Amino acid sequence: MHFTLHATDGAARAGTFTTPHGEVPTPAFMPVGTQATVKGLTPEMVRAAGAHIILGNTYHLALRPGDEIVRDFGGLHKFMHWDGPILTDSGGFQVFSLAGQVKITDHGAKFKSHIDGSPLELTPERAVEIQQNLGSDIAMVLDECPPATSESAKMRAAVLRTIRWAERCKKHHSRPGQAQFAIVQGGLNLDLRAECARELVAMDFPGYALGGFSVGEAPEAMHAALPACAACLPEHKPRYLMGVGRPQDLLAGVASGIDMFDCVMPTRNGRNALAFTSDGPIRLRNAKHRRDPAPVASDCACYCCENYSRGYLHHLFAADEMLGPTLLSLHNIAFYLRLMADARHAITEGRFAAFRAGCLARWNADS
Amino acid sequence: MHFTLHATDGAARAGTFTTPHGEVPTPAFMPVGTQATVKGLTPEMVRAAGAHIILGNTYHLALRPGDEIVRDFGGLHKFMHWDGPILTDSGGFQVFSLAGQVKITDHGAKFKSHIDGSPLELTPERAVEIQQNLGSDIAMVLDECPPATSESAKMRAAVLRTIRWAERCKKHHSRPGQAQFAIVQGGLNLDLRAECARELVAMDFPGYALGGFSVGEAPEAMHAALPACAACLPEHKPRYLMGVGRPQDLLAGVASGIDMFDCVMPTRNGRNALAFTSDGPIRLRNAKHRRDPAPVASDCACYCCENYSRGYLHHLFAADEMLGPTLLSLHNIAFYLRLMADARHAITEGRFAAFRAGCLARWNADS
Repeated sequence: MHFTLHATDGAARAGTFTTPHGEVPTPAFMPVGTQATVKGLTPEMVRAAGAHIILGNTYHLALRPGDEIVRDFGGLHKFMHWDGPILTDSGGFQVFSLAGQVKITDHGAKFKSHIDGSPLELTPERAVEIQQNLGSDIAMVLDECPPATSESAKMRAAVLRTIRWAERCKKHHSRPGQAQFAIVQGGLNLDLRAECARELVAMDFPGYALGGFSVGEAPEAMHAALPACAACLPEHKPRYLMGVGRPQDLLAGVASGIDMFDCVMPTRNGRNALAFTSDGPIRLRNAKHRRDPAPVASDCACYCCENYSRGYLHHLFAADEMLGPTLLSLHNIAFYLRLMADARHAITEGRFAAFRAGCLARWNADS
Repeated sequence: MHFTLHATDGAARAGTFTTPHGEVPTPAFMPVGTQATVKGLTPEMVRAAGAHIILGNTYHLALRPGDEIVRDFGGLHKFMHWDGPILTDSGGFQVFSLAGQVKITDHGAKFKSHIDGSPLELTPERAVEIQQNLGSDIAMVLDECPPATSESAKMRAAVLRTIRWAERCKKHHSRPGQAQFAIVQGGLNLDLRAECARELVAMDFPGYALGGFSVGEAPEAMHAALPACAACLPEHKPRYLMGVGRPQDLLAGVASGIDMFDCVMPTRNGRNALAFTSDGPIRLRNAKHRRDPAPVASDCACYCCENYSRGYLHHLFAADEMLGPTLLSLHNIAFYLRLMADARHAITEGRFAAFRAGCLARWNADS
C-alpha cells in the first residue's frame, strides 16, 4: 500500500493510494457492493459513474455464497466482474447490527445467521481468512463495534478488545498484496479514541479506519469529534471513515483529514426515488415531477441525467419498474463521486473551505 | 412502410422493412417494453443484445403516465430514450386480459383500470389517437380478442366486429410516417381466419398481424393453424404473430411465413431465473449451478455470458439481487434475437428446415 499526499488545505488532504488493481485518488467514495454486486448496477455502470474502488462485505459473502466458493471462482474481482480495487469490511459491524443474539468473548463473536438462523462464529482469524479467500485489495481487521452512545465501561472494554483483535488479525494475515487496515473505536470519547489509535499505530498498519460513527449519535457530535480522531492517525497513511454518510458528513470528514468513505445511502436512497442534486435532494415520486422534462440534475453528466427526464423517472417509480432504482442509484453514486472529485480539486487549489460552505448553502444543510 | 423480401425457403421468408427510425431485418423478434421500458434493461443493453425494434403497450401507457404526457415529452422514443423503431399494440388484448368487467359494444370496450378501478373506454378511434400521441413507427388497430377456444358464434361476432373496428381505425388514422397494421382474428377456425383476412386485405393495410393465438389453445393446434393463416396474408407485406411465444413457437411461425414476433417470455423467464440456451432451458436457482464457472451459454456472446458465471448468477438469485433478473433478461433477449438472426441466415441459404429440426432436437422440444 503506497499512499502519496499531493496537497493539503487545512486538515483536508488530496492524495493517491495504489493497490494491485489500480490507483485510487483521494478523497475517495467507495460504492457499496454488499453481496458481490452494487445493487442494480453493472460494474461498467459503476465505473462510468466515476468509481475507482468499491466495497464488499465479509459477513454477507461468508454466509452466501461462502468465501471458499468465491475463492474457487478466482476471487471476488473475477466472481463479480470488477477489475478495480476492492475493500472488504471485516463483518464486525454486520454481526452486531444484523445477526441475532450475539455473544462476544475474547475468542470471537458467536451469533446466528440472519439468513437461516444457523449458529456461526466470527473470530479475528476467521475474518482474516474470509477476506484472504475473497482476495480484496484492502482487508479490515475484526473490531467490536458498540453504538457511539454506549456507556463508558462498555466502550472501554470494546476498545481494549478491538486492540487485542487487531493484533491477532495482523499476526494471522499472510496474503501478499492485500493491505490490512486497523479500525479505531471509542465512540465519542476522545481519550478512548486517542488511546485506541496510539496502540494501533504502534502496530504499524498500512492504513487506519474510524469505526463506530453514524451508529446512534447526532451528526453534529460526529462532526465535532472527527478532527481530533483523524489527528490521532499517521499523516502518511490513508484514513477511512466507515459507513458514513450524507453528503454533508463526507465534507465534514474531508475537512477533518479523512481520505476514504463508504455508505449505502446513494444506492438505498436511489432505490427509494430520492436523488441527490447540487440544490439538495429531490423526491422523484412527488407528483410535481410528472410532466418535468428536465434531467434529475442539470449540472450532472451521468448516464441518467444525460438521457432521461424527471418525468420519465417519476413514471418508472410510479409503475414500479426496475429501471427507476437502477437509474437513480447510478445518478446518486455519480453525485457522491463527483462531490469527492470536486473536493479533491478544491483542496489542490486551496479553496476547500469555500467549496464546502458553498455546497452546504446550496443544499440548505446545517453542517 | 417499405418491405423487401430477400429470400424464401419453403414458406419461410427473409426480408427487411423500413420505418422512420431505421430498418428491421426479418424474421424479427421485438422485446417487450410494456411500460416504456424493457424491464430491467437500459435501451443500450437492448440494442447491444441485437434488437432492431421494440414493442410498447397502448393500454398501459394510456393509463400511466398517459399518452398526452408521453406526447408532450416528444413521443415514446424520446421519453424512454430508444431511438430505434417501436411498434405499439392496440390495447385490445390487455383490456380483455387485465381489466375487470369488460363490456363490449360496437362503439368500443368499457372496462375498469387495473391500477385504480376507474371506469375507462377504449374505442377504435381512441386506440388510434393514443398511438398517434405515443408516436410509434407501427400502430395496431383495435381488435376484439376472444380466446382461441371460444365457441363459434362468439368467435364469428368478434371477427365481424374486428373488421368493422379495423375500418374505423384506418379512417381515423392520420399520423404521417406511422404505419397501421390490421389484426386477423378467428381463433382456430380457418374459415373465419380466411374471411377476416380477406376483408382486411381488401382495405389495403401496410402490414397484417395474427391475433388471438397463445390464449388458451394447445401449441400444436396453433402450429397446425399457422401455415393456412399466414397464407391468407399478402406476400409483399410484413406478417406479425402477436404475443407468441416459446422459441419453438417462433420457429413454427417462421416456417409458416411469419416475419415478426413479440413475447414477454424472455424477460419474464429471465426475472424468474430461467435461461434459454442452445441445449434447452436451464434454471439458475438449481443448486447444481452453485459452483459452476461456465457461462449461462458457452456459445453466446451476450454481455451476461461474456462476463459472468452460472455460479455468480445462482448467487444473485439466491441473494435476491436486482442484477440477476437484469443479466438473465438480457441473455434471454439475446437468445431470441440470435435465434431470429440464425433463422434468417438459414433461410437465405435454403436450409431453414434443417436448422429448425436441429434446434428442436437440441432443445428436446416436441414441435
